[in-house]
Amino acid sequence: MPATAVLLNGQPRTAESATVSVFDRGFQYGDGVFETLAAVDGQARDRDAHMARLAEGARLLGIPAPDPAVLAAEIDALAGAADDSRAVIKVAYSRGRGGRGLAPPEEASPTRVVMRLPWPDHPRDWADSGVRTIACRTRQVSGAALDGRIKSMNQLNHIVARMEWRDPRIAEGLLCDDRGCLVEGTVTNLFAVRDGEVVTPDLSGSGLPGITRGRILALAGEHGVGAREADLRPGDLAGADELFLTNSLVGVWPVREHDGRALPGAPGPVTRRLQRALEASYAESPA
Amino acid sequence: MPATAVLLNGQPRTAESATVSVFDRGFQYGDGVFETLAAVDGQARDRDAHMARLAEGARLLGIPAPDPAVLAAEIDALAGAADDSRAVIKVAYSRGRGGRGLAPPEEASPTRVVMRLPWPDHPRDWADSGVRTIACRTRQVSGAALDGRIKSMNQLNHIVARMEWRDPRIAEGLLCDDRGCLVEGTVTNLFAVRDGEVVTPDLSGSGLPGITRGRILALAGEHGVGAREADLRPGDLAGADELFLTNSLVGVWPVREHDGRALPGAPGPVTRRLQRALEASYAESPA
Repeated sequence: MPATAVLLNGQPRTAESATVSVFDRGFQYGDGVFETLAAVDGQARDRDAHMARLAEGARLLGIPAPDPAVLAAEIDALAGAADDSRAVIKVAYSRGRGGRGLAPPEEASPTRVVMRLPWPDHPRDWADSGVRTIACRTRQVSGAALDGRIKSMNQLNHIVARMEWRDPRIAEGLLCDDRGCLVEGTVTNLFAVRDGEVVTPDLSGSGLPGITRGRILALAGEHGVGAREADLRPGDLAGADELFLTNSLVGVWPVREHDGRALPGAPGPVTRRLQRALEASYAESPA
Repeated sequence: MPATAVLLNGQPRTAESATVSVFDRGFQYGDGVFETLAAVDGQARDRDAHMARLAEGARLLGIPAPDPAVLAAEIDALAGAADDSRAVIKVAYSRGRGGRGLAPPEEASPTRVVMRLPWPDHPRDWADSGVRTIACRTRQVSGAALDGRIKSMNQLNHIVARMEWRDPRIAEGLLCDDRGCLVEGTVTNLFAVRDGEVVTPDLSGSGLPGITRGRILALAGEHGVGAREADLRPGDLAGADELFLTNSLVGVWPVREHDGRALPGAPGPVTRRLQRALEASYAESPA
């Protein structure tokens, strides 16, 4: 099987033949949602949670949700047929073709694309020895905007943030909202550890609560590590004992340097403990 | 000629054969810009101004701009071959195909789509007798976000606003920013007239300064009508003598009812004067 494979509305396509109409509202307006999953040893991790978030995003946009049994079968088919022990599954789900103008068609025919893609080429040792991060100048969109709270195809703000650095030794950039509070990385959630307690930004106003973030918060509780959501400002990072990042592909990335300042002792013990607990939890309850 | 025609990277396509890769960053992330032009009697209005705004949006996104001579020729070809006296020309310009992940490819191969589409089926008398508008609950994205200041493919916020009404007698919805100041309609700019003076929201923080808005501000000056950009709050609308909306397709739409409240005497004299001046200005300097 080639590393890249596509199911377009259920039909197998090659990377070359997987196309959508220029009138697809995904292309015209970013009118859709997506999910990115890790397929490890043939199994898509947190499949049901990703599908639930996709369906909720579609619901908020008024797009008819995909049939969960069909979508699950498509994800499983691509994940299960991967030659590599690790692959990426991406689901893109748009409102489908429409006429010109913002008003959606009365009866949408959504476009459903399930893709299998090569595992990202991050250095393997980043999960072990930690990563470098920077503070982005780009601000998170305001809390009022729906597109900052669902995993939508409107990713320009984070693309602009991602374009702030080209140095391949930098793994991630962190964004603040208009209040100057940290929200998230361009593709990760942020955690700080202080006095043995884990703090992650409160995302009730803005930002995307990641599925791996949810796992970490639950695991902290199970392992007797205090965890809470709170406002976290850039100045707080200097006083943190440990920092780490999470997402569905990388799991936990310890942070060993932020904005040029080394974090002594990184990766720290709480980070390491939760990183191991996360891996173990996938073995217990993968989907 | 069919009403709908497409040039995809310069190649003629039918509505059915005009497709882009699912890996096009326009489809994946809304990573691109667009413009909508009126083609009247075979000529695309304000072509050069729309092309300049498209190029500026691309520049801000770090996407190589299209060759202006090539793009102008494509727009002119589709506009000139229209059977109808009025048609819509839309240009969609994305960063093109990319791998997975937000970081743009080092060398982008942008996707350039020039489309001719049927003229919208708004009632013809809206320009004469005026339109109904509502206040949207959806908030404009914050001023910090680039995607609210360029005409990008990230249109979800305004789509959500547009979904607030289905009544076909409502022409437009107006959005406020987080400060409670009016910014724009979902596809139009807003003007209020009070004591003979024209006021339009200051868009330095958020919102898209329309090309027709620019024409109106210039024409007001030429016709001895005072015009300024200022904060405009919903409460100010009740005290306005006249309200009107502008965009490249509708020109000037007088507002005759906002949020269920009739505006007596609409369309008012200043609106009418600027509406006529706008039409006359296209005859003088169409492109």
